[in-house]
Amino acid sequence: MLTIDLIHEARERIWRFVHRTPVLTSRAFDERAGREVFFKCENFQRAGAFKMRGATNRIRALTDGERERGVVAFSSGNHAQAVAVASRDAGVRARIAMPSDAPRAKVEATKGYGAEVVFYDRRRDDREQVARDLAAESGAVLVPPYDDYLVMAGQGTCAMELFEEVTDLDALALPFGGGGLFAGASVAAKALSPRVECFAVEPEAGDDARQSFLKGERVKIDPPETIADGARPQSPGELTFPLLQRNAADVLTVSDAEIVEAMKFLLLRLKVLVEPTGALPAAAALFGKLPPNVRRVGVVLSGGNVDADTLASLIAPPNDNA
Amino acid sequence: MLTIDLIHEARERIWRFVHRTPVLTSRAFDERAGREVFFKCENFQRAGAFKMRGATNRIRALTDGERERGVVAFSSGNHAQAVAVASRDAGVRARIAMPSDAPRAKVEATKGYGAEVVFYDRRRDDREQVARDLAAESGAVLVPPYDDYLVMAGQGTCAMELFEEVTDLDALALPFGGGGLFAGASVAAKALSPRVECFAVEPEAGDDARQSFLKGERVKIDPPETIADGARPQSPGELTFPLLQRNAADVLTVSDAEIVEAMKFLLLRLKVLVEPTGALPAAAALFGKLPPNVRRVGVVLSGGNVDADTLASLIAPPNDNA
Repeated sequence: MLTIDLIHEARERIWRFVHRTPVLTSRAFDERAGREVFFKCENFQRAGAFKMRGATNRIRALTDGERERGVVAFSSGNHAQAVAVASRDAGVRARIAMPSDAPRAKVEATKGYGAEVVFYDRRRDDREQVARDLAAESGAVLVPPYDDYLVMAGQGTCAMELFEEVTDLDALALPFGGGGLFAGASVAAKALSPRVECFAVEPEAGDDARQSFLKGERVKIDPPETIADGARPQSPGELTFPLLQRNAADVLTVSDAEIVEAMKFLLLRLKVLVEPTGALPAAAALFGKLPPNVRRVGVVLSGGNVDADTLASLIAPPNDNA
Repeated sequence: MLTIDLIHEARERIWRFVHRTPVLTSRAFDERAGREVFFKCENFQRAGAFKMRGATNRIRALTDGERERGVVAFSSGNHAQAVAVASRDAGVRARIAMPSDAPRAKVEATKGYGAEVVFYDRRRDDREQVARDLAAESGAVLVPPYDDYLVMAGQGTCAMELFEEVTDLDALALPFGGGGLFAGASVAAKALSPRVECFAVEPEAGDDARQSFLKGERVKIDPPETIADGARPQSPGELTFPLLQRNAADVLTVSDAEIVEAMKFLLLRLKVLVEPTGALPAAAALFGKLPPNVRRVGVVLSGGNVDADTLASLIAPPNDNA
């Protein structure tokens, strides 16, 4: 089970290896959003996303025997980089199954960090099976991207840091992909700041969490088409979904256009680069999706890994020019 | 004269109105630079640059009579925005003389902050004369961009914050435009951390500070063509130059191509948007311009105000595409 004790233990285990990321505020953003927003900048985290926390917590908890056999992971991106960096830090071999259409920057970064990348076809292969086969071959330990209590506990440490720095929050807004960040952060919130309402935010086109939350059971959707590539899981995790049910005040959705607007505002006004998935909760705050009673909200900018080309096209779409 | 006491007073006067900006580190940058770099993120400062510190210090020191008559400033950009915001904060009228070819984003931002913009021709008019005429008409106080001890003292507070947070620095690397930031920061360094060597960094094409430093007198160059629009003054300031002579270990230059590379690295790896002038010292660190004995260096990322179009073209120049 995921408890606050597990998150405290994670903090103790990982703090030497991860950044304590800053919290930024912006009067310009607050004016547009009509509320006070506190940005926890996990885009400045090592390997560019909060995923470094969970991966480090899992890998630093390996037994000596497990360390020798190494780790395996499947990921469309940030989790892969995090497992690669955390493994290199710990001197552990890592093999990562990635979809062949994963963003180039993420594939290159993962290799650059010393991990082996094994490609699979996102439409044909079952990525979990690919990773399980790799693990079975070598006796390596599978590090799942979210459905693992040690991984979730690691992600929860970012909310713990936020509550230490900012008091009197009414709400916490979190991107929801597989649900690991939401699970860890919402458990931390309920224990450390029980008044805080937790909102999960996902792209309109990939609203599996919202459908599941409303129906009371895990709904599987078709592979969603959205620029928020970290929010492409087709259903909430088996272990994360009960925590969404228990801890979420609501599940909100934003359009891809709203995500792009939020990214631009964060980049040009706050001067921070946030990837589409990382901008989900900022978009919710900017476009009035939060209830009016939320005056002070913590927003996790969960990651900042964007290709240069993707970034250029987002900022100035070619068809915008004469 | 510019003393550490004046900087302490500035800190006391302005801290409620400016951000204490975070210090970021990056192992990826350190590996490329071959040293430990501590980035003081003044691009996250209010109005997007350190200029907010000096403008606030000057404007908060106005007498009641001066407050009623308002302020006037001349600026190619960040100083204008800073004077506009600091004036609005203080309830003081501001009129700003800007060149007609100033970046659009900067003009719009200045107006958006409630200041009146008066355009002049950068090649035909003397901007100081334009501003002096405006001041004479109305009895307003001129807030110079750098040649003013209160302005310099305000800029120095960012180095003060850095020394509180990071100890044992060997060096401080600062962009040099007119010299206000260098003046304030180097006086803070000599008083608070005397071992620190101070390096000024300017664009190759606009090396008026380097020429002046080597010759021992203020050299005036032709209007320089460089993307570092904050480093276009044609000579160091009258009041800032003696502090450059006294406090600089050296004046370094970087090419525009090196500036762009540094901006890209900061954006795509550190996830922070820095404008060309703001990237000068980071470029010096990245491209081996600092002496080898500098192991730990503080780098001020002085500003982050970039047009969306300029940014897009820097990230993916049109002629790079097929």
